[in-house]
Amino acid sequence: MKRRLLLVCRFFGRDVKRVLFVPYALHDRDAYTKTARDKFSTLGGGNTFRLLKSLYDNEVLTEIRRRVLEDGVPYMGSSAGTNVATVSISTTNDMPIVYPPAFAAIGLVPFNINPHYVDPDPGSRHMGETREQRITQYHEETDTPCVLGLREGSLLLVEGNTASLLGTTKARLFTRGKPPVEYDPGSDLSCLLTR
Amino acid sequence: MKRRLLLVCRFFGRDVKRVLFVPYALHDRDAYTKTARDKFSTLGGGNTFRLLKSLYDNEVLTEIRRRVLEDGVPYMGSSAGTNVATVSISTTNDMPIVYPPAFAAIGLVPFNINPHYVDPDPGSRHMGETREQRITQYHEETDTPCVLGLREGSLLLVEGNTASLLGTTKARLFTRGKPPVEYDPGSDLSCLLTR
Repeated sequence: MKRRLLLVCRFFGRDVKRVLFVPYALHDRDAYTKTARDKFSTLGGGNTFRLLKSLYDNEVLTEIRRRVLEDGVPYMGSSAGTNVATVSISTTNDMPIVYPPAFAAIGLVPFNINPHYVDPDPGSRHMGETREQRITQYHEETDTPCVLGLREGSLLLVEGNTASLLGTTKARLFTRGKPPVEYDPGSDLSCLLTR
Repeated sequence: MKRRLLLVCRFFGRDVKRVLFVPYALHDRDAYTKTARDKFSTLGGGNTFRLLKSLYDNEVLTEIRRRVLEDGVPYMGSSAGTNVATVSISTTNDMPIVYPPAFAAIGLVPFNINPHYVDPDPGSRHMGETREQRITQYHEETDTPCVLGLREGSLLLVEGNTASLLGTTKARLFTRGKPPVEYDPGSDLSCLLTR
């Protein structure tokens, strides 16, 4: 927890006075904001469809993109907040509980992320698709070349033209038409930004 | 496998000559149809968003509803095929790889199903929401009162005004504003049809 808080502070910078928290992903926004304020280190996610729909409904999607890409305001997302920062929410794990006007998201980076990435469990009786199969299905439908599978414990830091994998777990990169590749913590993933 | 095939044959009836297979949920429809024809007992699912979008794009959604509800043609769905038979696809586990014109589905029954239902794993390091939490989020957004969580190994047989749980595993029923209830195989779930 302490380590995560340190990372958060370093990300936003010493001199930051205010952080805008977007509580759209959970139903009870006041309670969610209070939790975030009280315990900045346990940033939850919520539902990606609800978050994206609210960003559209409140007409803030374009404004967030502009503020981050043009003015350099730092953006931090966790789970649903990560999904909406990418090209689209098409690689979320969440249930489609509400219908957003599109799946296209803020588009701060030119690829998609699958948060909470899990490896197949060979002992499982579960008959549903594995996460990897689901991402392969996504690649059948879209031109977005890359999906980064972020396991619990890892994060992607993007600054200008550089991207690096931080944290304690490997990440799995799915590129359309190629075999998946594993990256260790500390890896330079800047290549993702130019594809 | 044999047992499942028997169930399938009993469901469609002795005299059935032809079964319409809807292969929209997988990318390679010809291969999927061939698999289904060769091995009728291993009915796979595919992606729910792709299936629903194709039902809309090919304008067959209303026709399927009419044929089933008015003409009594038997409908069988597995995984994605189960999701599209209910009120909406809002309780699918699949990734939103394509954007359908709505989440409303064929609506053969007045409730939703969550296929491949899994119980929380207390030993897991996974930080994403549990399946139960996801269904609770759905209930925050909609008036559809019930979601039936079908674990691997169970199926719901609906005939006229009766519904029964068949198979070898329990099912978990989520009713809006009430605690979840477990049902044993063999349970009468006809109450679901009148809510």
